[in-house]
Amino acid sequence: MTAAATATVYPDHLRREVESYLEAFRFSTGEPATAGLQEAMRYSLLAGGKRIRPVLALATARAIELPFGVLPLAAALELIHTYSLIHDDLPPMDDDDLRRGRPTCHKVFGEDVAILAGDGLYAEAFRHLTHHQDGDPRRVLAAVCELAAATGVDGMVGGQFIDVKNLADRGETTLRRLHELKTGRLIGASVECVLLLSGNGNGPPTRIDDFREFAAELGVLFQIVDDILDVTGTDAALGKPRGSDARHGKLTYVSSYGLDGARTLAAESHDKVLTALHRAAPARPTELEHITDFISNRTS
Amino acid sequence: MTAAATATVYPDHLRREVESYLEAFRFSTGEPATAGLQEAMRYSLLAGGKRIRPVLALATARAIELPFGVLPLAAALELIHTYSLIHDDLPPMDDDDLRRGRPTCHKVFGEDVAILAGDGLYAEAFRHLTHHQDGDPRRVLAAVCELAAATGVDGMVGGQFIDVKNLADRGETTLRRLHELKTGRLIGASVECVLLLSGNGNGPPTRIDDFREFAAELGVLFQIVDDILDVTGTDAALGKPRGSDARHGKLTYVSSYGLDGARTLAAESHDKVLTALHRAAPARPTELEHITDFISNRTS
Repeated sequence: MTAAATATVYPDHLRREVESYLEAFRFSTGEPATAGLQEAMRYSLLAGGKRIRPVLALATARAIELPFGVLPLAAALELIHTYSLIHDDLPPMDDDDLRRGRPTCHKVFGEDVAILAGDGLYAEAFRHLTHHQDGDPRRVLAAVCELAAATGVDGMVGGQFIDVKNLADRGETTLRRLHELKTGRLIGASVECVLLLSGNGNGPPTRIDDFREFAAELGVLFQIVDDILDVTGTDAALGKPRGSDARHGKLTYVSSYGLDGARTLAAESHDKVLTALHRAAPARPTELEHITDFISNRTS
Repeated sequence: MTAAATATVYPDHLRREVESYLEAFRFSTGEPATAGLQEAMRYSLLAGGKRIRPVLALATARAIELPFGVLPLAAALELIHTYSLIHDDLPPMDDDDLRRGRPTCHKVFGEDVAILAGDGLYAEAFRHLTHHQDGDPRRVLAAVCELAAATGVDGMVGGQFIDVKNLADRGETTLRRLHELKTGRLIGASVECVLLLSGNGNGPPTRIDDFREFAAELGVLFQIVDDILDVTGTDAALGKPRGSDARHGKLTYVSSYGLDGARTLAAESHDKVLTALHRAAPARPTELEHITDFISNRTS
């Protein structure tokens, strides 16, 4: 599928909703001395991108016909994703100069401000979510808890630790586990938090389990494709020099299985995602299907 | 007052409760590959200290006779305080090698792990609080929101930004504002979150306002004493070389008002704290009084 065809299929109406919401976002209730910090946060937050996590949350809410909106949750997911990119790019971590075709946060604002911009985005995600998200308070609490767990030691931060310390040995189990934590848990939480808000976390287990399987495998698919793109993508499309995984000596699906092997794994994963999705939401999977296809076929 | 007398007065029974709770704390539900990260988090969390913020929360709960415990909130406060110390000590920030007499987190575990240890502690604070804190879910949500706000752009992170960027000009208003954000808001939240959990945030406004005034001024007092100790304390008592503020060219109460001027401000602040406290909790202020006296008379 070409990039143009992919762009047509992606649920851009949901992405535009997210984009408008993020553009109108205010980080402060009025502290002028922190303007420079807010500028750094906004620089990274409004750098474009497909907004996969918030779009996934909105599409899930529509698939299960949730009777209220989840834009506050969607925004929190993107704030957290942005914070993780800022910290991952720092010199003591991946030391990346470019992100989405622009200088990374610390290249523009300095390392001290970049660390604080990440910290501030994470704080703001929880402040905004707890203050603005509709739903039964008990269920909102459960969603906040899931979001914190998905981004902590047993999630994103733990996965990044395993990654920077090169602790994963060569074997599919560990590699999957690394990416489940680093990338998969937050992608999974984009679905799971909506289920928790709906109260379906206490409902019939089969459909929920299917949704969970869909979300978890979608995270795996995302990472396999990411690893393939680091080898096959163009610098312009990626917004950063390709081959950075190899230069950092990172264990990837391509370094472990070769390019063809990784492509086979991606195709298998794609099938698994769609199978779980059709079990989870047989009636209304369209937007979620389109997100899945986009993740599978993306070029950046 | 001598150090020995101060130690006797401080509510050590509450500190021991906090210490036991923190020692039993588990960061992970069982991911062995993140053991090194958890070790770094634990190294900084269990480095001792007076545990002022959690002790303040426990003492406030007792003063207002809250019918349930607040140890999960107390732990979250200390996790967040620890995370802020780890990030503040990093080379691009204050670049400190010693903290409480021991090498700082990044000196022992490296900068990458220190950044992630801070991130992980912050995540864990929210996960633990939302999962374990008793109370009406609506009130727990309000407390989580306050904790996030107090530690974000309009709180701790914003204050640290103003501090590292040396944005405060010489004048009492800006200096107070810097410290209100950097230190005061989290100390204030240690009281405020307990009030929110009790539902008194919706109760008669006078007593709540008095409690807020008590907490806010306590944060100011804490910082004035901190600035004085940076000049008059001994290296051994402080656990780090004294005079680090002056070496960093930082604006402090001592650099602005001289040592005697700062001592006068501290005495005035101490009076204001106790006046507000006696209005807030005329019947049971004892432990909160002791914490106030400790903060005023501490030597480290």
